Amino acid sequence: MRGALMYAPGDVRVEDREKPVIEAPTDAVIKVTAACVCGSDLHPYRGVEPVDGPVPMGHEYVGVVEEIGDEVTTVKVGDFVVGSFWASDNTCDICRAGYQSRCVHAVLMGTLGAQAEYLRVPLADGTLVATPGQPEEDLVPSLLAASDVLGTGWYAAVAAEAGPGRTVAVVGDGAVGLMAVLAAKRLGAERIIAMSRHESRQRLALEFGATDIVTERGDEGVERVKELTDGLGAHSVIEAVGTQESMMQAIRSTRPGGHVGYVGVSHDVALPGDELFFALVDLTGGPAPVRRFLPELIDLIWKREIDPGKVFDLTLPLEEAADGFEAMDRRRAVKVLLKP
Amino acid sequence: MRGALMYAPGDVRVEDREKPVIEAPTDAVIKVTAACVCGSDLHPYRGVEPVDGPVPMGHEYVGVVEEIGDEVTTVKVGDFVVGSFWASDNTCDICRAGYQSRCVHAVLMGTLGAQAEYLRVPLADGTLVATPGQPEEDLVPSLLAASDVLGTGWYAAVAAEAGPGRTVAVVGDGAVGLMAVLAAKRLGAERIIAMSRHESRQRLALEFGATDIVTERGDEGVERVKELTDGLGAHSVIEAVGTQESMMQAIRSTRPGGHVGYVGVSHDVALPGDELFFALVDLTGGPAPVRRFLPELIDLIWKREIDPGKVFDLTLPLEEAADGFEAMDRRRAVKVLLKP
Repeated sequence: MRGALMYAPGDVRVEDREKPVIEAPTDAVIKVTAACVCGSDLHPYRGVEPVDGPVPMGHEYVGVVEEIGDEVTTVKVGDFVVGSFWASDNTCDICRAGYQSRCVHAVLMGTLGAQAEYLRVPLADGTLVATPGQPEEDLVPSLLAASDVLGTGWYAAVAAEAGPGRTVAVVGDGAVGLMAVLAAKRLGAERIIAMSRHESRQRLALEFGATDIVTERGDEGVERVKELTDGLGAHSVIEAVGTQESMMQAIRSTRPGGHVGYVGVSHDVALPGDELFFALVDLTGGPAPVRRFLPELIDLIWKREIDPGKVFDLTLPLEEAADGFEAMDRRRAVKVLLKP
Repeated sequence: MRGALMYAPGDVRVEDREKPVIEAPTDAVIKVTAACVCGSDLHPYRGVEPVDGPVPMGHEYVGVVEEIGDEVTTVKVGDFVVGSFWASDNTCDICRAGYQSRCVHAVLMGTLGAQAEYLRVPLADGTLVATPGQPEEDLVPSLLAASDVLGTGWYAAVAAEAGPGRTVAVVGDGAVGLMAVLAAKRLGAERIIAMSRHESRQRLALEFGATDIVTERGDEGVERVKELTDGLGAHSVIEAVGTQESMMQAIRSTRPGGHVGYVGVSHDVALPGDELFFALVDLTGGPAPVRRFLPELIDLIWKREIDPGKVFDLTLPLEEAADGFEAMDRRRAVKVLLKP
């Protein structure tokens, strides 16, 4: 089968790979209907994270179950399924508390390579959620978004305690930040401030429910958020970048007693204890337990109550995965969908 | 009147100071019944925080209202009152959300000097809570504890989401850590692990409700907590020290999806973003909004349902404040009560 591999920073190739097979009785193999390129895939692509290539790429996926192991009971061959970017058993204490991304048996799907024709999914019962039937073609991008960016943005909004009466600020206008805007809106936030300086992303943010756009960054961005919130800061701030600047911008934009939900994968970040202490804000985040939200998100998508698929602004055949990486790296695309 | 002043690290003196007067119509002046030395008072005493002496000391107090400004309505002359170490209006948006320690008009009581015969309390209506009557003598230490260490430990336990079915670990065996044990117990925690290597403090921790004692520190302490919690870590961890080691010990002792409530005033702490991210723990803390809890705490003390006053293991006349600082600095005393 064909699948994407990263050889080195900037060097992604689609090549023949072994078609995955059932290795454990809890595995499923799916035929991938759609996969995509993640902002976090750009970290090794840009050399921010080391890459010891060639390694398979991709951890976001929807597809049709091709084969299941003997112990799999919740999905069957032919089901259309959505899974999280962490495989999880969904039965351990950590999963049952809703933190499947830190399941005691968690497997990072990125190591298996979802940008491919077929994908082995470990712990299929705990990882995959079947849709109510075969989706119409136009729902596929939204279901794919649920696999990571929507689920991650949703978790960030929940972690930031976005809700009725709350002003929510979103730091980061990538796909996750935009999905967080959608989530905050859906969770009932009164006011949603999207921090973005890119016109196309501002437009999407407004479409997803943003009420205000702030183009300033860093401390100037903080000042603008305070001006919009009686000098206090936002109740809920979502951080979807992962740099020192963005984390401090998020913490400083939050009012005392407010909540920061952070989902940008941290790189070279060190949070100053004294500032954090006196900020009196709640800091919740990390790798999103997307599995917790999948049933609800699939339901909302199925009923066409949300349309997160709009975040994909470029669709390419899998063979052109390299172009997809390049388009996201150069910010020519917010999010690239790949079709095997 | 007499009052304690810090001239320099290690140099505390009790001298004549001007008796405070009503300066604003929202002020009250109280005759201090009891005050105490705080762990945070040791920071300038030890030179960890700069001190530009002589400065008045003390921010924990109970006493009798001596005089009130024209606009004060909730306490009257003769009332026995307990106040927080932050004066707060208790009416701004931040206060109403329960974060009075970051009230938009907050005044740090430490700047006014509670280790004295009289104390001016700004924003008296929002800061002071009157007890139901004049307390019996033996209740005074407990009411005094409510002013800071109990309120702070309580907030830490609430921030860490201690409660039924939860295992709580407490990092720090100072007065606040011990009060956090009491709070966790009262909030219904199933298991309470006190981390302490001092026998007298272990004894107090057990008396306040600890079920397990861990004497190891740092990563060894973390391993012990994990051994006690099926390898997962505690649901709720309270940090009551404020150093890099103690913060990391707290974060690493917490299971994914768990909660760290931190109230140790941070010094030279830098939290590594990547470790924090992948820990997937909630970090909530800062200067405790003690005022939020005062009515409830006073009620529990008044009904003799809790006895936090046991944390005071040395009582001295105000004139001997210097000895009180020294006793706490050398860890000869957990907490020193001063009687003007």
